[in-house]
Amino acid sequence: MSQRVFHLSTSGQGLYEFTRPVTQWITDGQVEQGLLTLFLRHTSCSLLIQENADPEVQTDLRNFFHSLVPPSTDPSMSYLTHTYEGPDDMPAHIKAAMMPVSLNIPISNGRLVLGTWQGIYLFEHRNAPHDRQVVAHIS
Amino acid sequence: MSQRVFHLSTSGQGLYEFTRPVTQWITDGQVEQGLLTLFLRHTSCSLLIQENADPEVQTDLRNFFHSLVPPSTDPSMSYLTHTYEGPDDMPAHIKAAMMPVSLNIPISNGRLVLGTWQGIYLFEHRNAPHDRQVVAHIS
Amino acid sequence: MSQRVFHLSTSGQGLYEFTRPVTQWITDGQVEQGLLTLFLRHTSCSLLIQENADPEVQTDLRNFFHSLVPPSTDPSMSYLTHTYEGPDDMPAHIKAAMMPVSLNIPISNGRLVLGTWQGIYLFEHRNAPHDRQVVAHIS
Repeated sequence: MSQRVFHLSTSGQGLYEFTRPVTQWITDGQVEQGLLTLFLRHTSCSLLIQENADPEVQTDLRNFFHSLVPPSTDPSMSYLTHTYEGPDDMPAHIKAAMMPVSLNIPISNGRLVLGTWQGIYLFEHRNAPHDRQVVAHIS
Repeated sequence: MSQRVFHLSTSGQGLYEFTRPVTQWITDGQVEQGLLTLFLRHTSCSLLIQENADPEVQTDLRNFFHSLVPPSTDPSMSYLTHTYEGPDDMPAHIKAAMMPVSLNIPISNGRLVLGTWQGIYLFEHRNAPHDRQVVAHIS
Repeated sequence: MSQRVFHLSTSGQGLYEFTRPVTQWITDGQVEQGLLTLFLRHTSCSLLIQENADPEVQTDLRNFFHSLVPPSTDPSMSYLTHTYEGPDDMPAHIKAAMMPVSLNIPISNGRLVLGTWQGIYLFEHRNAPHDRQVVAHIS
Protein backbone atom coordinates (compact mmCIF):
# COMPACT_ATOMS: atom_id res chain seq x y z
CA MET A 1 0.00 0.00 0.00
CA SER A 2 1.34 3.45 -0.84
CA GLN A 3 0.06 6.98 -1.25
CA ARG A 4 1.16 10.28 -2.68
CA VAL A 5 -0.30 13.60 -3.76
CA PHE A 6 -0.14 15.01 -7.28
CA HIS A 7 -0.13 18.81 -7.42
CA LEU A 8 -1.60 20.43 -10.52
CA SER A 9 -1.75 24.10 -11.42
CA THR A 10 -4.66 25.20 -13.58
CA SER A 11 -5.21 28.44 -15.50
CA GLY A 12 -8.85 28.50 -16.48
CA GLN A 13 -11.55 26.02 -17.47
CA GLY A 14 -10.50 22.98 -19.43
CA LEU A 15 -8.82 19.59 -19.31
CA TYR A 16 -5.29 19.12 -17.93
CA GLU A 17 -3.69 15.76 -18.65
CA PHE A 18 -1.47 14.13 -16.01
CA THR A 19 -1.26 10.55 -17.30
CA ARG A 20 2.53 10.55 -17.49
CA PRO A 21 3.42 11.34 -13.84
CA VAL A 22 0.83 8.77 -12.73
CA THR A 23 2.15 5.99 -14.97
CA GLN A 24 5.70 6.92 -13.92
CA TRP A 25 4.73 6.55 -10.26
CA ILE A 26 3.20 3.12 -10.99
CA THR A 27 6.36 2.01 -12.80
CA ASP A 28 8.56 3.26 -9.96
CA GLY A 29 6.42 1.44 -7.38
CA GLN A 30 6.98 -1.94 -9.03
CA VAL A 31 3.52 -3.18 -8.10
CA GLU A 32 2.81 -6.27 -10.19
CA GLN A 33 -0.93 -6.44 -9.56
CA GLY A 34 -3.05 -3.93 -7.71
CA LEU A 35 -5.51 -1.07 -7.85
CA LEU A 36 -4.86 2.63 -8.29
CA THR A 37 -7.39 5.04 -6.79
CA LEU A 38 -7.35 8.78 -7.50
CA PHE A 39 -9.24 11.23 -5.30
CA LEU A 40 -9.70 14.96 -5.84
CA ARG A 41 -9.72 17.18 -2.75
CA HIS A 42 -11.97 19.84 -4.31
CA THR A 43 -15.61 20.53 -5.18
CA SER A 44 -15.18 22.71 -8.27
CA CYS A 45 -13.19 20.48 -10.60
CA SER A 46 -13.39 16.83 -11.72
CA LEU A 47 -11.34 13.79 -12.66
CA LEU A 48 -11.87 12.35 -16.13
CA ILE A 49 -10.54 9.51 -18.20
CA GLN A 50 -10.92 10.62 -21.80
CA GLU A 51 -9.55 10.26 -25.29
CA ASN A 52 -6.00 11.59 -25.52
CA ALA A 53 -5.54 11.37 -29.28
CA ASP A 54 -7.30 14.47 -30.62
CA PRO A 55 -7.19 17.70 -28.54
CA GLU A 56 -10.47 18.77 -30.18
CA VAL A 57 -12.23 16.27 -27.91
CA GLN A 58 -11.11 18.33 -24.91
CA THR A 59 -12.33 21.57 -26.48
CA ASP A 60 -15.69 20.02 -27.29
CA LEU A 61 -16.08 18.62 -23.76
CA ARG A 62 -15.38 22.02 -22.24
CA ASN A 63 -17.84 23.72 -24.57
CA PHE A 64 -20.58 21.14 -24.07
CA PHE A 65 -20.50 21.46 -20.27
CA HIS A 66 -20.26 25.25 -20.51
CA SER A 67 -23.40 25.17 -22.63
CA LEU A 68 -25.21 22.67 -20.36
CA VAL A 69 -24.32 24.62 -17.21
CA PRO A 70 -23.81 28.27 -18.22
CA PRO A 71 -22.48 30.96 -15.86
CA SER A 72 -24.90 32.20 -13.22
CA THR A 73 -25.17 35.51 -15.11
CA ASP A 74 -27.00 33.66 -17.89
CA PRO A 75 -30.79 34.34 -17.71
CA SER A 76 -31.49 30.58 -17.75
CA MET A 77 -29.60 30.25 -14.44
CA SER A 78 -31.37 33.09 -12.65
CA TYR A 79 -32.67 30.70 -9.97
CA LEU A 80 -29.17 30.14 -8.57
CA THR A 81 -28.59 31.61 -5.10
CA HIS A 82 -24.93 30.75 -4.40
CA THR A 83 -23.47 33.45 -6.64
CA TYR A 84 -21.21 35.60 -4.45
CA GLU A 85 -18.04 33.68 -5.35
CA GLY A 86 -18.44 34.59 -9.02
CA PRO A 87 -20.57 33.53 -11.99
CA ASP A 88 -18.39 30.46 -12.61
CA ASP A 89 -18.55 29.14 -9.04
CA MET A 90 -21.96 27.48 -8.70
CA PRO A 91 -21.74 26.04 -12.26
CA ALA A 92 -18.40 24.57 -11.17
CA HIS A 93 -20.06 22.79 -8.21
CA ILE A 94 -22.78 21.47 -10.53
CA LYS A 95 -20.24 20.10 -13.02
CA ALA A 96 -18.31 18.60 -10.09
CA ALA A 97 -21.49 16.72 -9.17
CA MET A 98 -21.87 15.34 -12.71
CA MET A 99 -18.30 14.10 -13.17
CA PRO A 100 -16.04 11.93 -11.00
CA VAL A 101 -14.34 13.03 -7.77
CA SER A 102 -12.71 9.57 -7.47
CA LEU A 103 -11.56 6.99 -10.04
CA ASN A 104 -10.07 3.49 -10.02
CA ILE A 105 -7.68 1.92 -12.51
CA PRO A 106 -6.48 -1.68 -11.99
CA ILE A 107 -2.77 -2.46 -12.30
CA SER A 108 -1.84 -5.63 -14.16
CA ASN A 109 1.64 -6.87 -15.09
CA GLY A 110 3.07 -3.77 -13.46
CA ARG A 111 1.06 -1.34 -15.62
CA LEU A 112 -2.23 0.53 -15.49
CA VAL A 113 -4.78 -1.29 -17.69
CA LEU A 114 -5.69 1.96 -19.50
CA GLY A 115 -7.07 1.45 -23.00
CA THR A 116 -5.08 2.62 -26.02
CA TRP A 117 -6.76 6.03 -26.18
CA GLN A 118 -7.38 6.67 -22.50
CA GLY A 119 -5.66 9.55 -20.73
CA ILE A 120 -6.11 10.81 -17.16
CA TYR A 121 -7.27 14.41 -16.82
CA LEU A 122 -8.18 17.00 -14.27
CA PHE A 123 -11.15 18.98 -15.59
CA GLU A 124 -10.93 22.49 -14.12
CA HIS A 125 -14.30 24.27 -13.85
CA ARG A 126 -13.10 27.63 -12.43
CA ASN A 127 -11.80 30.59 -14.45
CA ALA A 128 -9.11 31.79 -12.03
CA PRO A 129 -5.82 29.92 -11.59
CA HIS A 130 -5.99 27.20 -8.94
CA ASP A 131 -3.63 24.75 -7.27
CA ARG A 132 -5.29 21.34 -7.18
CA GLN A 133 -4.43 18.22 -5.20
CA VAL A 134 -5.11 14.67 -6.35
CA VAL A 135 -4.48 12.00 -3.71
CA ALA A 136 -3.29 8.73 -5.26
CA HIS A 137 -3.54 5.42 -3.42
CA ILE A 138 -2.22 2.01 -4.49
CA SER A 139 -3.60 -1.10 -2.84
CA MET B 1 -10.58 -4.90 6.22
CA SER B 2 -13.92 -3.94 7.75
CA GLN B 3 -17.45 -3.17 6.62
CA ARG B 4 -20.61 -1.63 7.96
CA VAL B 5 -23.87 -0.18 6.71
CA PHE B 6 -25.00 3.40 7.25
CA HIS B 7 -28.79 3.81 7.38
CA LEU B 8 -30.21 7.15 6.27
CA SER B 9 -33.82 8.30 6.32
CA THR B 10 -34.83 10.80 3.69
CA SER B 11 -37.93 12.98 3.41
CA GLY B 12 -37.99 14.32 -0.13
CA GLN B 13 -35.54 15.40 -2.80
CA GLY B 14 -32.33 17.03 -1.65
CA LEU B 15 -28.92 16.50 -0.10
CA TYR B 16 -28.46 14.77 3.27
CA GLU B 17 -25.03 15.09 4.83
CA PHE B 18 -23.54 12.14 6.72
CA THR B 19 -19.88 13.15 6.94
CA ARG B 20 -19.77 12.96 10.74
CA PRO B 21 -20.79 9.30 11.28
CA VAL B 22 -18.37 8.28 8.53
CA THR B 23 -15.40 10.19 9.97
CA GLN B 24 -16.32 8.86 13.44
CA TRP B 25 -16.25 5.28 12.11
CA ILE B 26 -12.82 5.91 10.56
CA THR B 27 -11.50 7.34 13.83
CA ASP B 28 -12.89 4.38 15.79
CA GLY B 29 -11.32 1.90 13.35
CA GLN B 30 -7.81 3.26 13.97
CA VAL B 31 -6.73 2.57 10.40
CA GLU B 32 -3.53 4.51 9.79
CA GLN B 33 -3.47 4.24 6.00
CA GLY B 34 -6.18 2.77 3.79
CA LEU B 35 -9.07 3.36 1.45
CA LEU B 36 -12.71 3.99 2.26
CA THR B 37 -15.29 2.93 -0.32
CA LEU B 38 -18.96 3.88 -0.10
CA PHE B 39 -21.61 2.06 -2.11
CA LEU B 40 -25.30 2.91 -2.40
CA ARG B 41 -27.75 -0.02 -2.65
CA HIS B 42 -30.34 1.94 -4.65
CA THR B 43 -31.06 3.20 -8.17
CA SER B 44 -32.99 6.39 -7.38
CA CYS B 45 -30.55 8.35 -5.24
CA SER B 46 -26.83 9.23 -5.45
CA LEU B 47 -23.68 9.74 -3.43
CA LEU B 48 -22.01 13.14 -3.65
CA ILE B 49 -19.00 14.87 -2.24
CA GLN B 50 -19.85 18.55 -2.23
CA GLU B 51 -19.20 21.86 -0.55
CA ASN B 52 -20.42 21.83 3.05
CA ALA B 53 -19.90 25.52 3.86
CA ASP B 54 -22.94 27.23 2.32
CA PRO B 55 -26.31 25.40 2.35
CA GLU B 56 -27.34 27.41 -0.75
CA VAL B 57 -25.06 25.14 -2.77
CA GLN B 58 -27.31 22.22 -1.88
CA THR B 59 -30.46 24.11 -2.84
CA ASP B 60 -28.93 25.12 -6.16
CA LEU B 61 -27.79 21.56 -6.93
CA ARG B 62 -31.29 20.21 -6.27
CA ASN B 63 -32.88 22.90 -8.44
CA PHE B 64 -30.40 22.46 -11.29
CA PHE B 65 -31.00 18.73 -11.58
CA HIS B 66 -34.75 19.22 -11.20
CA SER B 67 -34.59 21.62 -14.12
CA LEU B 68 -32.31 19.36 -16.21
CA VAL B 69 -34.47 16.28 -15.56
CA PRO B 70 -38.02 17.48 -14.86
CA PRO B 71 -40.85 15.20 -13.65
CA SER B 72 -42.34 12.91 -16.28
CA THR B 73 -45.50 15.03 -16.25
CA ASP B 74 -43.50 17.84 -17.87
CA PRO B 75 -44.27 18.09 -21.62
CA SER B 76 -40.56 17.92 -22.45
CA MET B 77 -40.42 14.44 -20.90
CA SER B 78 -43.44 13.03 -22.74
CA TYR B 79 -41.26 10.33 -24.35
CA LEU B 80 -40.73 8.55 -21.03
CA THR B 81 -42.43 5.16 -20.74
CA HIS B 82 -41.53 4.04 -17.19
CA THR B 83 -44.04 6.32 -15.44
CA TYR B 84 -46.28 4.06 -13.33
CA GLU B 85 -44.20 4.53 -10.16
CA GLY B 86 -44.87 8.27 -10.17
CA PRO B 87 -43.64 11.35 -12.05
CA ASP B 88 -40.48 11.54 -9.92
CA ASP B 89 -39.42 7.91 -10.45
CA MET B 90 -37.88 7.81 -13.93
CA PRO B 91 -36.18 11.21 -13.43
CA ALA B 92 -34.70 9.69 -10.24
CA HIS B 93 -33.20 6.81 -12.23
CA ILE B 94 -31.78 9.28 -14.76
CA LYS B 95 -30.17 11.40 -12.04
CA ALA B 96 -28.83 8.20 -10.44
CA ALA B 97 -27.10 7.47 -13.77
CA MET B 98 -25.49 10.93 -13.84
CA MET B 99 -24.13 10.96 -10.29
CA PRO B 100 -22.07 8.42 -8.31
CA VAL B 101 -23.35 5.14 -6.89
CA SER B 102 -19.89 4.44 -5.41
CA LEU B 103 -17.11 6.69 -4.09
CA ASN B 104 -13.58 6.27 -2.74
CA ILE B 105 -11.76 8.41 -0.17
CA PRO B 106 -8.19 7.52 0.87
CA ILE B 107 -7.30 7.40 4.56
CA SER B 108 -3.98 8.95 5.57
CA ASN B 109 -2.59 9.44 9.10
CA GLY B 110 -5.77 7.90 10.44
CA ARG B 111 -8.07 10.42 8.72
CA LEU B 112 -10.02 10.75 5.49
CA VAL B 113 -8.12 13.04 3.11
CA LEU B 114 -11.24 15.15 2.47
CA GLY B 115 -10.52 18.72 1.41
CA THR B 116 -11.42 21.60 3.71
CA TRP B 117 -14.85 22.18 2.17
CA GLN B 118 -15.76 18.63 1.22
CA GLY B 119 -18.71 16.91 2.88
CA ILE B 120 -20.25 13.50 2.11
CA TYR B 121 -23.89 13.52 1.04
CA LEU B 122 -26.69 11.26 -0.03
CA PHE B 123 -28.64 13.00 -2.79
CA GLU B 124 -32.24 11.78 -2.60
CA HIS B 125 -34.11 11.95 -5.92
CA ARG B 126 -37.54 10.66 -4.76
CA ASN B 127 -40.32 12.74 -3.18
CA ALA B 128 -41.63 10.16 -0.71
CA PRO B 129 -39.71 9.28 2.48
CA HIS B 130 -37.18 6.47 1.97
CA ASP B 131 -34.80 4.41 4.09
CA ARG B 132 -31.46 4.24 2.32
CA GLN B 133 -28.47 1.97 2.89
CA VAL B 134 -24.86 2.94 2.21
CA VAL B 135 -22.38 0.07 2.49
CA ALA B 136 -18.97 1.26 3.74
CA HIS B 137 -15.84 -0.77 3.20
CA ILE B 138 -12.32 -0.08 4.49
CA SER B 139 -9.37 -1.81 2.87
CA MET C 1 -6.41 -10.40 -5.04
CA SER C 2 -7.55 -11.52 -8.49
CA GLN C 3 -8.32 -9.99 -11.86
CA ARG C 4 -10.04 -10.93 -15.08
CA VAL C 5 -11.47 -9.26 -18.17
CA PHE C 6 -15.11 -9.43 -19.24
CA HIS C 7 -15.62 -9.16 -23.00
CA LEU C 8 -18.90 -7.69 -24.21
CA SER C 9 -20.15 -7.31 -27.77
CA THR C 10 -22.47 -4.41 -28.44
CA SER C 11 -24.71 -3.68 -31.42
CA GLY C 12 -25.79 -0.08 -31.12
CA GLN C 13 -26.60 2.41 -28.38
CA GLY C 14 -28.23 1.08 -25.24
CA LEU C 15 -27.72 -0.84 -22.02
CA TYR C 16 -26.24 -4.34 -21.93
CA GLU C 17 -26.58 -6.20 -18.65
CA PHE C 18 -23.75 -8.44 -17.45
CA THR C 19 -24.68 -8.92 -13.78
CA ARG C 20 -24.78 -12.73 -14.05
CA PRO C 21 -21.20 -13.43 -15.24
CA VAL C 22 -19.90 -11.00 -12.60
CA THR C 23 -21.84 -12.58 -9.72
CA GLN C 24 -20.81 -16.03 -11.01
CA TRP C 25 -17.15 -14.97 -10.91
CA ILE C 26 -17.57 -13.71 -7.34
CA THR C 27 -19.19 -16.99 -6.29
CA ASP C 28 -16.42 -19.00 -7.96
CA GLY C 29 -13.74 -16.91 -6.25
CA GLN C 30 -15.04 -17.76 -2.77
CA VAL C 31 -14.06 -14.37 -1.38
CA GLU C 32 -15.87 -13.95 1.95
CA GLN C 33 -15.32 -10.21 2.33
CA GLY C 34 -13.77 -7.85 -0.18
CA LEU C 35 -14.25 -5.21 -2.82
CA LEU C 36 -15.03 -5.61 -6.51
CA THR C 37 -13.84 -2.88 -8.86
CA LEU C 38 -14.91 -2.68 -12.50
CA PHE C 39 -13.00 -0.55 -15.01
CA LEU C 40 -13.92 0.15 -18.63
CA ARG C 41 -11.05 0.42 -21.12
CA HIS C 42 -12.92 2.81 -23.46
CA THR C 43 -13.93 6.46 -23.80
CA SER C 44 -17.22 6.09 -25.71
CA CYS C 45 -19.27 3.86 -23.41
CA SER C 46 -20.03 3.77 -19.67
CA LEU C 47 -20.61 1.48 -16.70
CA LEU C 48 -23.94 1.80 -14.91
CA ILE C 49 -25.71 0.21 -11.98
CA GLN C 50 -29.39 0.54 -12.71
CA GLU C 51 -32.81 -0.96 -12.13
CA ASN C 52 -33.07 -4.40 -13.68
CA ALA C 53 -36.79 -5.00 -13.15
CA ASP C 54 -38.45 -3.07 -15.96
CA PRO C 55 -36.71 -2.88 -19.38
CA GLU C 56 -38.53 0.41 -20.04
CA VAL C 57 -36.06 2.05 -17.66
CA GLN C 58 -33.25 1.18 -20.06
CA THR C 59 -35.15 2.58 -23.04
CA ASP C 60 -35.88 5.80 -21.18
CA LEU C 61 -32.25 6.19 -20.09
CA ARG C 62 -31.05 5.79 -23.67
CA ASN C 63 -33.60 8.28 -24.96
CA PHE C 64 -32.90 10.84 -22.24
CA PHE C 65 -29.17 10.92 -22.92
CA HIS C 66 -29.77 10.94 -26.67
CA SER C 67 -31.96 13.99 -26.17
CA LEU C 68 -29.49 15.69 -23.78
CA VAL C 69 -26.52 15.05 -26.07
CA PRO C 70 -27.86 14.77 -29.63
CA PRO C 71 -25.74 13.70 -32.63
CA SER C 72 -23.30 16.28 -33.94
CA THR C 73 -25.51 16.72 -37.03
CA ASP C 74 -28.14 18.32 -34.79
CA PRO C 75 -28.12 22.15 -35.19
CA SER C 76 -27.80 22.60 -31.41
CA MET C 77 -24.45 20.78 -31.55
CA SER C 78 -22.98 22.80 -34.40
CA TYR C 79 -20.11 24.03 -32.18
CA LEU C 80 -18.57 20.54 -32.03
CA THR C 81 -15.25 20.18 -33.86
CA HIS C 82 -14.38 16.49 -33.33
CA THR C 83 -16.84 15.15 -35.92
CA TYR C 84 -14.81 13.13 -38.42
CA GLU C 85 -15.44 9.80 -36.66
CA GLY C 86 -19.18 10.13 -37.21
CA PRO C 87 -22.10 12.10 -35.68
CA ASP C 88 -22.37 9.69 -32.75
CA ASP C 89 -18.68 9.86 -31.76
CA MET C 90 -18.28 13.16 -29.89
CA PRO C 91 -21.67 12.72 -28.14
CA ALA C 92 -20.36 9.31 -27.03
CA HIS C 93 -17.29 10.95 -25.43
CA ILE C 94 -19.53 13.49 -23.69
CA LYS C 95 -21.82 10.78 -22.29
CA ALA C 96 -18.71 8.84 -21.22
CA ALA C 97 -17.69 11.93 -19.20
CA MET C 98 -21.09 12.09 -17.47
CA MET C 99 -21.35 8.43 -16.46
CA PRO C 100 -18.90 6.09 -14.66
CA VAL C 101 -15.77 4.58 -16.18
CA SER C 102 -15.08 2.72 -12.91
CA LEU C 103 -17.36 1.31 -10.20
CA ASN C 104 -16.96 -0.42 -6.82
CA ILE C 105 -19.24 -2.98 -5.19
CA PRO C 106 -18.34 -4.42 -1.76
CA ILE C 107 -18.46 -8.19 -1.23
CA SER C 108 -20.01 -9.40 2.03
CA ASN C 109 -20.71 -13.00 3.09
CA GLY C 110 -19.36 -14.14 -0.25
CA ARG C 111 -21.79 -12.03 -2.30
CA LEU C 112 -21.95 -8.61 -3.92
CA VAL C 113 -24.00 -6.27 -1.74
CA LEU C 114 -26.13 -5.19 -4.71
CA GLY C 115 -29.61 -3.97 -3.77
CA THR C 116 -32.67 -5.95 -4.81
CA TRP C 117 -33.22 -4.06 -8.06
CA GLN C 118 -29.63 -3.27 -8.99
CA GLY C 119 -28.11 -4.74 -12.13
CA ILE C 120 -24.68 -4.08 -13.70
CA TYR C 121 -24.71 -2.66 -17.22
CA LEU C 122 -22.45 -1.49 -19.97
CA PHE C 123 -24.03 1.57 -21.59
CA GLU C 124 -22.91 1.64 -25.23
CA HIS C 125 -22.90 5.14 -26.78
CA ARG C 126 -21.79 4.23 -30.34
CA ASN C 127 -24.05 3.07 -33.17
CA ALA C 128 -21.68 0.56 -34.80
CA PRO C 129 -20.99 -2.85 -33.23
CA HIS C 130 -18.08 -2.79 -30.76
CA ASP C 131 -16.12 -5.26 -28.66
CA ARG C 132 -15.75 -3.85 -25.17
CA GLN C 133 -13.45 -4.85 -22.32
CA VAL C 134 -14.27 -4.46 -18.63
CA VAL C 135 -11.37 -5.20 -16.27
CA ALA C 136 -12.58 -6.68 -12.98
CA HIS C 137 -10.43 -6.59 -9.85
CA ILE C 138 -11.13 -8.16 -6.45
CA SER C 139 -9.24 -6.96 -3.41
